[in-house]
Amino acid sequence: MREPDGPVLAVDIGGTKIIIAIITADGRIMAEERQPTLVVEGVQAVIGRLFSGIDNLLEQNNLRPTQLRGISLAVAGPIDSSRGLVTVSPNMPDWHDVLLRDMVGERCGVDAFLVNDASAAALGEHRFGAGRGVNNLVLLTLGTGIGGGIVIDGKLYLGACGSAGEPGHMVIDVNGPECGCGRRGCLEALASGTAVARDAVLRLRQGEKSSLVEMVGGKMEDITAEKVGEAARKGDALAQGVISRAGTYLGVGLANLVNIFNPEMIVLGGGMVNLGELLLGPARQVALAQSFPISARAVRIVTAELGERAGIYGATAYAFDSDRRLA
Amino acid sequence: MREPDGPVLAVDIGGTKIIIAIITADGRIMAEERQPTLVVEGVQAVIGRLFSGIDNLLEQNNLRPTQLRGISLAVAGPIDSSRGLVTVSPNMPDWHDVLLRDMVGERCGVDAFLVNDASAAALGEHRFGAGRGVNNLVLLTLGTGIGGGIVIDGKLYLGACGSAGEPGHMVIDVNGPECGCGRRGCLEALASGTAVARDAVLRLRQGEKSSLVEMVGGKMEDITAEKVGEAARKGDALAQGVISRAGTYLGVGLANLVNIFNPEMIVLGGGMVNLGELLLGPARQVALAQSFPISARAVRIVTAELGERAGIYGATAYAFDSDRRLA
Repeated sequence: MREPDGPVLAVDIGGTKIIIAIITADGRIMAEERQPTLVVEGVQAVIGRLFSGIDNLLEQNNLRPTQLRGISLAVAGPIDSSRGLVTVSPNMPDWHDVLLRDMVGERCGVDAFLVNDASAAALGEHRFGAGRGVNNLVLLTLGTGIGGGIVIDGKLYLGACGSAGEPGHMVIDVNGPECGCGRRGCLEALASGTAVARDAVLRLRQGEKSSLVEMVGGKMEDITAEKVGEAARKGDALAQGVISRAGTYLGVGLANLVNIFNPEMIVLGGGMVNLGELLLGPARQVALAQSFPISARAVRIVTAELGERAGIYGATAYAFDSDRRLA
Repeated sequence: MREPDGPVLAVDIGGTKIIIAIITADGRIMAEERQPTLVVEGVQAVIGRLFSGIDNLLEQNNLRPTQLRGISLAVAGPIDSSRGLVTVSPNMPDWHDVLLRDMVGERCGVDAFLVNDASAAALGEHRFGAGRGVNNLVLLTLGTGIGGGIVIDGKLYLGACGSAGEPGHMVIDVNGPECGCGRRGCLEALASGTAVARDAVLRLRQGEKSSLVEMVGGKMEDITAEKVGEAARKGDALAQGVISRAGTYLGVGLANLVNIFNPEMIVLGGGMVNLGELLLGPARQVALAQSFPISARAVRIVTAELGERAGIYGATAYAFDSDRRLA
């Protein structure tokens, strides 16, 4: 590390935008900027924009890279943490085995860190959000897909090579719908935003009635989980049914995790959480009814507090934790 | 603790027998004895036999309780480790909220420890068996039921109150057969010894042919997973099909665990492992094919090495680890 007491430059590279921020050890955001990811322009263009974003933010804040504790990157997809490698990334289809950590470290002359975005979110919520003071927690990010992160004994659990924490790809219905990962009936294929939109369209095509059709002007491909949520809040029965079904599946997945981890806390984040009790009510009910009573009594199921900043907060904590490990 | 360098008196209370042993810190078994559990005689009778077994073994070896590091007990079922409580136990239906740890500690005047038997097996295999030198592992005991234990960072992971590690009660088929825990389609309901026997009987009742019928003299209720295994080894197609199906479900469960834990190792123990490649072949194949490639490459799926002594070895390691925590 260059400057052990310096702030971290934290980056969250998402499918639609890149958030770059300078954050102190105690979680103060000194500066932040955002730019579109523009995945379609390809890996090199995205990395080019990342570098200029980093340069800009440092310049605007009169910081040299050597004054940083390091640069820490959160990215979607399975990460090989020993090699600092983005193996594949669901939101960025042309990213394969990108040695992002060393590219950033060498370009900027700093220590660099790379962590999965949902793992970062789990650590972020643990240090600065819903999970402060908790020893063990499991976080799920409920969005287009379902990601996850695990904190054990107050530390991020990464597994053998950094790719632990994929409860979205836990099969709960072996005969269920196909998942992007190739399996059938993963939690992600049953309770993600994509699953909610797909189920609504499926039921409409089977001839069921819903205000959704009018809402999208008959364009089925415009139906999203957000729109299903909007229709449900206005009392649409089909929309409510679809969300409640996703919540039930989510509950089955959560009960599995409660039985496996006996966690103190499960934190639910991601855009789907905005569906509120329509989704979370059945999820909580099933999770607690279906898990071992002793573990059900021990767990609090809460929503995330840091919103879209969970990744940059977590990347920051990860860099400070990593330094401690190296020390 | 009374004697930090002394051996541990380790006990494994199973549904059919109690194993009691005196074991040193480096895993040397100084003495061992077994007796039937005789669950039907009730909690007090079992505990009475436990006490006399402990007394006998100490006397035979010229040891006083104060020369022990402690007495450490492994018991099936969810344990409340903070209170030293056996909440319920699948093999001992009349055990409810038995304060076993303190009963033993006070009766014998020693420090006592209580841990779930499959968690103990995981720790035992980690210290003295298949998992030596590994940082993270998940163990499954494949028997009448399916238990589990988790070692993370070289330590037993117990969760918020000691009941972590129940991958047998992870639903993988929401529409599957009922499980003893009340859910549907748990791994235990699809891949345990009980499930194998049930599936064989089901197919026979549907009119399929098998040498099993003759083997049990027409008594369907005498069909066990062991007998199904025997028939399968002799080439019986129905028996082979039933075991291979259980192996496939086991593989789905293992893939879930690989995606969640990215473990270095999965250890498979319990009587079902004797079914050999008929069960383990499909399990391994499905587990590796269905999990993320980066995690699949990192995991070794192996069989347990300590047999029925895994529990007493693990209880021993648990006592020494606990002492270290208290120190």
